[in-house]
Amino acid sequence: MKFHVLTLFPEMIENGLRTSITGRALEKGLLSLDTVNIRDFAGNKHGKVDDYPYGGGAGMVMQAEPVYAAHQYVTARAGRPLRTVYLTPQGRTFHQEMAEEFAKEEELVLLCGHYEGIDERVLEEIVTDFVSIGDYVLTGGELPAMVMIDTISRLVEGVLNNETSAEFESFHDSLLEYPQYSRPEVWRGKAVPPVLLSGHHGNVEKWRREQSIRRTAKWRPDLLEKADLTDKEKELLKKEKESLKGEEKWDSIGEKNLKNWLRM
Amino acid sequence: MKFHVLTLFPEMIENGLRTSITGRALEKGLLSLDTVNIRDFAGNKHGKVDDYPYGGGAGMVMQAEPVYAAHQYVTARAGRPLRTVYLTPQGRTFHQEMAEEFAKEEELVLLCGHYEGIDERVLEEIVTDFVSIGDYVLTGGELPAMVMIDTISRLVEGVLNNETSAEFESFHDSLLEYPQYSRPEVWRGKAVPPVLLSGHHGNVEKWRREQSIRRTAKWRPDLLEKADLTDKEKELLKKEKESLKGEEKWDSIGEKNLKNWLRM
Repeated sequence: MKFHVLTLFPEMIENGLRTSITGRALEKGLLSLDTVNIRDFAGNKHGKVDDYPYGGGAGMVMQAEPVYAAHQYVTARAGRPLRTVYLTPQGRTFHQEMAEEFAKEEELVLLCGHYEGIDERVLEEIVTDFVSIGDYVLTGGELPAMVMIDTISRLVEGVLNNETSAEFESFHDSLLEYPQYSRPEVWRGKAVPPVLLSGHHGNVEKWRREQSIRRTAKWRPDLLEKADLTDKEKELLKKEKESLKGEEKWDSIGEKNLKNWLRM
Repeated sequence: MKFHVLTLFPEMIENGLRTSITGRALEKGLLSLDTVNIRDFAGNKHGKVDDYPYGGGAGMVMQAEPVYAAHQYVTARAGRPLRTVYLTPQGRTFHQEMAEEFAKEEELVLLCGHYEGIDERVLEEIVTDFVSIGDYVLTGGELPAMVMIDTISRLVEGVLNNETSAEFESFHDSLLEYPQYSRPEVWRGKAVPPVLLSGHHGNVEKWRREQSIRRTAKWRPDLLEKADLTDKEKELLKKEKESLKGEEKWDSIGEKNLKNWLRM
């Protein structure tokens, strides 16, 4: 899969993605990364690509033409129109299923805005998808573009060493992942749950699935609506929800921990 | 504000944040970034920090002790317990108000997991906040940590050149931002909305606020529940919702655009 990133900070994208799993996949040629510096299409000596917003207000706005020219450059080389994502707080919220959809594309263009955004007129011309990675405001579209590329890349065949690794992850079946433990068996007085040492594969799976349901019930009950549960699991969920009624809300666990510490 | 990042890829964090606005704020000393390589606390010659998960399954798990030792190193230097965020899909979903809360801390520790996660026992010991940046799965916690740092940094006094810039942004008042336009007045046959050239400040503000309400109604109606609207604006919203009934859903706009292109 090939990612084209239109950005004012190509080195940030390059540095960020040439590490770890995406880095290895790029080396192996499973992924390809093409960063295009919008400033190269400024059309003036100073490489200036922004100007004041019409109607006044703080900050600068990226002008239409350099963005348009950079995009034309990419699609001309591809020889066909390409799906083009603008990373913006004004977009649809990115989620795992959307990533699965994008992973079907052979090539994807990601447009990173900066300052107070990009002139609306060029967005109307070139953008097919407006995507937000979450309800928070960032300096620019570079980190969101990297987040999208990382998420989508993991779904491209061969990128993860082990195919099963992506299958059991959080959100895949609308459940959070179970807790993980590794050596030693006892760490600072804390033992690994005995079932994980039993060697009984069926019991391990059952325990993990239960942990996933419990965690999701406690921390992200909103996800459960979409989860595909057996009748037995629905029964477990019902009990879990009842036992949670008396408990503290997840929101306050962090603060509780912090208060305990401050007493240290 | 000081950020401590516990990670296996410190150079990714350094490269990612030393650009643009966060980069300038770091240079000015408004922010401080301390990346700690968990591998330095491996306790063995090979720098090995992961092992197989108890109970079996794909992938490797980061062991408890190196993470614990890296965290102890940071808190010992600080001389006090520090709020510690673990970036994980199993966390509370990050949002702008949460960023405002974190921005009140003088120091914040961000713990980045990799592989199949971190041994649960050390998380119970050191983590005060479990945070997810969205419902998608990434290679590791590095990009989420950078996303959090970028978002939080913008709220630290002096980091943005213009204080008003953060105020009018998306999500601040549960409305999406209005469209922006810059020179030229007419670009490829598309004119800037005349009101923005009128010089009438009141009309500009009114138009922008209406655009924000309209966009939010169309793209993120879920946000409107929290928005603080006047009676007149509620009336506008009602009309907007009615006019939207006949229109295509936002979800299909991208596909429509794409189809138009494919006909080109």
